[in-house]
Amino acid sequence: MRSHYCGQLNSSHIDQEVELCGWVHRSRDHGGVIFIDLRDREGLVQVVYDPDLPEVFSAAEHVRNEFVLRVKGRVRARPEGTVNPDMPTGEVEVLGLELEVLNKADTPPFQLDEHEKASEEIRLRYRYIDLRRPEMQEKIRIRARTTQLLRRFLDDRGFLDIETPMLTKATPEGARDYLVPSRTHPGEFFALPQSPQLFKQLLMMSGMDRYYQIVRCFRDEDLRADRQPEFTQLDIETSFLDENEIMELNEEMIRQLYKEILDVDLPNPFPRMTYDEAMDRYGSDCPDLRVPLELVDLQDLMQEVEFKVFSGPAKDPHGRVAALHVPGGSSLSRKKIDGYTKFVGIYGAKGLAYIKVNELAKGRDGLQSPILKFLPDSAVDGILERTGAKDGDLIFFGADKTHVVNEALGALRVKVGEDLDLMEGAWRPLWVVDFPMFEWDDKHNRWNPLHHPFTSPKDDQIDLLESDPGKCKSRAYDMVVNGTELGGGSIRIHSGELQQKIFKLLEIGEEEAQEKFGFLLNALKYGCPPHGGLAFGLDRLVMLLTGSKSIRDVMAFPKTQSAACQLTSAPSEVSMTQLRELSIRVRKPQSEEAS
Amino acid sequence: MRSHYCGQLNSSHIDQEVELCGWVHRSRDHGGVIFIDLRDREGLVQVVYDPDLPEVFSAAEHVRNEFVLRVKGRVRARPEGTVNPDMPTGEVEVLGLELEVLNKADTPPFQLDEHEKASEEIRLRYRYIDLRRPEMQEKIRIRARTTQLLRRFLDDRGFLDIETPMLTKATPEGARDYLVPSRTHPGEFFALPQSPQLFKQLLMMSGMDRYYQIVRCFRDEDLRADRQPEFTQLDIETSFLDENEIMELNEEMIRQLYKEILDVDLPNPFPRMTYDEAMDRYGSDCPDLRVPLELVDLQDLMQEVEFKVFSGPAKDPHGRVAALHVPGGSSLSRKKIDGYTKFVGIYGAKGLAYIKVNELAKGRDGLQSPILKFLPDSAVDGILERTGAKDGDLIFFGADKTHVVNEALGALRVKVGEDLDLMEGAWRPLWVVDFPMFEWDDKHNRWNPLHHPFTSPKDDQIDLLESDPGKCKSRAYDMVVNGTELGGGSIRIHSGELQQKIFKLLEIGEEEAQEKFGFLLNALKYGCPPHGGLAFGLDRLVMLLTGSKSIRDVMAFPKTQSAACQLTSAPSEVSMTQLRELSIRVRKPQSEEAS
Repeated sequence: MRSHYCGQLNSSHIDQEVELCGWVHRSRDHGGVIFIDLRDREGLVQVVYDPDLPEVFSAAEHVRNEFVLRVKGRVRARPEGTVNPDMPTGEVEVLGLELEVLNKADTPPFQLDEHEKASEEIRLRYRYIDLRRPEMQEKIRIRARTTQLLRRFLDDRGFLDIETPMLTKATPEGARDYLVPSRTHPGEFFALPQSPQLFKQLLMMSGMDRYYQIVRCFRDEDLRADRQPEFTQLDIETSFLDENEIMELNEEMIRQLYKEILDVDLPNPFPRMTYDEAMDRYGSDCPDLRVPLELVDLQDLMQEVEFKVFSGPAKDPHGRVAALHVPGGSSLSRKKIDGYTKFVGIYGAKGLAYIKVNELAKGRDGLQSPILKFLPDSAVDGILERTGAKDGDLIFFGADKTHVVNEALGALRVKVGEDLDLMEGAWRPLWVVDFPMFEWDDKHNRWNPLHHPFTSPKDDQIDLLESDPGKCKSRAYDMVVNGTELGGGSIRIHSGELQQKIFKLLEIGEEEAQEKFGFLLNALKYGCPPHGGLAFGLDRLVMLLTGSKSIRDVMAFPKTQSAACQLTSAPSEVSMTQLRELSIRVRKPQSEEAS
Repeated sequence: MRSHYCGQLNSSHIDQEVELCGWVHRSRDHGGVIFIDLRDREGLVQVVYDPDLPEVFSAAEHVRNEFVLRVKGRVRARPEGTVNPDMPTGEVEVLGLELEVLNKADTPPFQLDEHEKASEEIRLRYRYIDLRRPEMQEKIRIRARTTQLLRRFLDDRGFLDIETPMLTKATPEGARDYLVPSRTHPGEFFALPQSPQLFKQLLMMSGMDRYYQIVRCFRDEDLRADRQPEFTQLDIETSFLDENEIMELNEEMIRQLYKEILDVDLPNPFPRMTYDEAMDRYGSDCPDLRVPLELVDLQDLMQEVEFKVFSGPAKDPHGRVAALHVPGGSSLSRKKIDGYTKFVGIYGAKGLAYIKVNELAKGRDGLQSPILKFLPDSAVDGILERTGAKDGDLIFFGADKTHVVNEALGALRVKVGEDLDLMEGAWRPLWVVDFPMFEWDDKHNRWNPLHHPFTSPKDDQIDLLESDPGKCKSRAYDMVVNGTELGGGSIRIHSGELQQKIFKLLEIGEEEAQEKFGFLLNALKYGCPPHGGLAFGLDRLVMLLTGSKSIRDVMAFPKTQSAACQLTSAPSEVSMTQLRELSIRVRKPQSEEAS
């Protein structure tokens, strides 16, 4: 139907006759001539209808926004003075010779140019209109280009794209599963996969050697801004490679991707940092290295001060006292600091002590702080020395359980960095390595795996599994870019005995282990190769690449925060017949039944 | 860990030191020397351990089948007389200098070489062992290569790979949906998609212009040999192209695929045949053109015969009388013919009349048939003339409702063609076009769509929608290869009024239409471009390409015919807590509750 895309026309097409198909982006009558901006996937071009051609002119008079047109016309240079340098096709226009209305359109619920005035709910309900916006089209295109590049990189290196089941057994990732009732096995359920973890390990046991898949995963969790009930992973697994080889291969892939999509050179190699160092310096295992602020330990300085808020955590083996030094921060208003106090409260911090360094030369008088009176000179001197604070700076303090201090100051660090515009560099990737195998679960009084229970401990630390599990490090690695965890993985356990030892340590009883993972334990007996891999969050990766604020923007048909689809009104009620066939019935929460 | 894959070694590597990783395919002690066939994804190589190196020799003595080894050794030419021409690496062997057992293996439940002795159940339960077989690896590799080639073809032509939701609204394909209870919307359910049909149409309305996706689809149907509860589609949709352009593009894609994978040249262009012609000549809308047999109409000849079995259907406007002429078929034994009679019974035929043509020169005496006595000479002469039967041939007859005759003789045609080894040509693709829009549903006394309710009627036949819906042809097309429907699609309806007219004709009430498809009807109002597309069954395509007998063979982790996974024991029971969170309870069929 068409000879060119609208957005492709330029001065090389002048005098050519072209056929275009697209949507009326806008139309206007200007001095008795009708100008239509015709839009397709590749962009806009101006089509001009002249009253000299009365028949098509009259047809053009009746088009409205979002009508679908087929246009035949001749490309010509725009008259002098009307060239539009902001438009890729702005040097030319098309003199319309024919016009066919392929479809009409009602007035859309919002104009594309004015989408910001529409609520997100309306834009999701009319997603097919919102997706017509050039910015949205660009995001979807970058997503398609991204998967294409990732696939080609892996194809070229002998990775096989292999599909794993969607209707499967409850997975061990620990989040809530989406369940699917089985009709042929009444009372039994499939689970939608939280990840293909066990299947990709089974593929290694099947001798597939190198596997990847771009695969949908499901988690029925309470949704945060950057979570969706279904999301997409680039899932990778390989045999006979160690963690260094896997990290090298994957950072090479991401480097090539950034080069192709954004023309950005990421560092080669990516810096690596241990988990312990990341927590000490940044209070986070996915530090945003663009923020040039670091946490400074004050533990030893605060052991003996009378100020219990500091000395308590300083003496607690599970506590931490740390400072965050903010150059130029003394200009922060009281109101701003109150805001930060509230902010760290989200992470459980009970307050936010600070010292403003007004004039060091004046000693204590040059400092301004509600807590100064509680601290002896030696502590104050130590703080100033360790942070290297100068006139005009500010120092925040955190003192609490270690995880509270880390989360609160870690988050504050990024927030202050953004607020004060301190960010350095556009893209700062790194690997975080040497994760602990386990974290202590206070609530259930047991060890939980920090990654998942198939992660291998470091070879030289297997003894610690018995003597001091909390100290045992794993062969896991996370790729972090600008404070976002893009992907993570590990070398897996390939020994059945070790796997059982880990299950035991996690207090997964033998029966439960058999019931849940029996097939894996079985498979480990029959010649499992050493293997490992990782998974990238594709939605987050594309979100970063496109500079989007939400993963909803990089999915064609996302769900709302209550896990519903505004467009199709899913989920919805189903018939009794369907439920009967599946051997289930609805049982609403009691509060609702009572009402 | 390795320098080469086992299967890659050849005489160009002689004298090189190599490192290999793989599985012990078999090992044997031959004249005091140990020979290990080491296997990896790329093939097998023979590794030799000599007693001259006592330490590694002793290690080699302890390996068993399916142990995972790391081997270091030197490639050398095999001694004269021991070259194995059947093995790609058969000119060389590796003198083992080091040996590390990476993992041991229990005796596998079946030996790879003896998999045919194991039941399919055992092979599915130990799928990770069955997948180690070179033939299975090859199938999985061809599948990966197939998706790679299809993607590249479409990427290169501006098709965007766009993901559509898995948790969605019940789809209109008519098969049973898999349902997913929503936790956040008690009493409501998502459906897993039977196809992304409506979403891909919405993407066209979103101006994406060209879309594809390799996507999982779900149907909760009773399973036949070539069905799985989850299967994979290559789904394609495009705007502003007509059916001819879409067919040309897609057959080009399939031609390239066959060339790359099998080095086969498919015809260019594919022949096209109308639905009516396919039914008349082959009794099937997916005819296997390799079979050189055709149905011959006898309707007019049989109107007046006294034999009611023929004259009844001949006079019935919904009946058909047809012959299937089998050259050389007179040699078929009575037993064989009885078998075919049973076979057509599956399709509802009440019998299978036949005439053996022994010697035409003898007139009636040269024919052998239980029905001959019921037929006048004129009818017999007509049959012989129309079929062109010669001495030694056989003619089968079908007389019944048209659909019974077509199904019975259509299936018999293929069966006889296979049995008598009449197949001509290896690959015979075609397009079947001009499908009827609707078929009459005797059971519910209404029209059903032959494809789906979004299929566009032919432009010049829209009047028939009211006057004679059964005659109205659609803009649908199916690609058929060797009697298998590889893919099908259509130009869709892009007018809201026409869509509503079709819903009305299908007796989908206004309320139901709004409830199920309201979002589509809505979207049609806001500038929907003309569009169409198709979907290929990827599993079937790979099954054809690999010469597999079942789609189970081309899926890494298939389910059994009762829709269960032998490997992971899915589906399975879940906890009361999980069910309570989802606001459902199990209600087993009454017969079970009573027992």
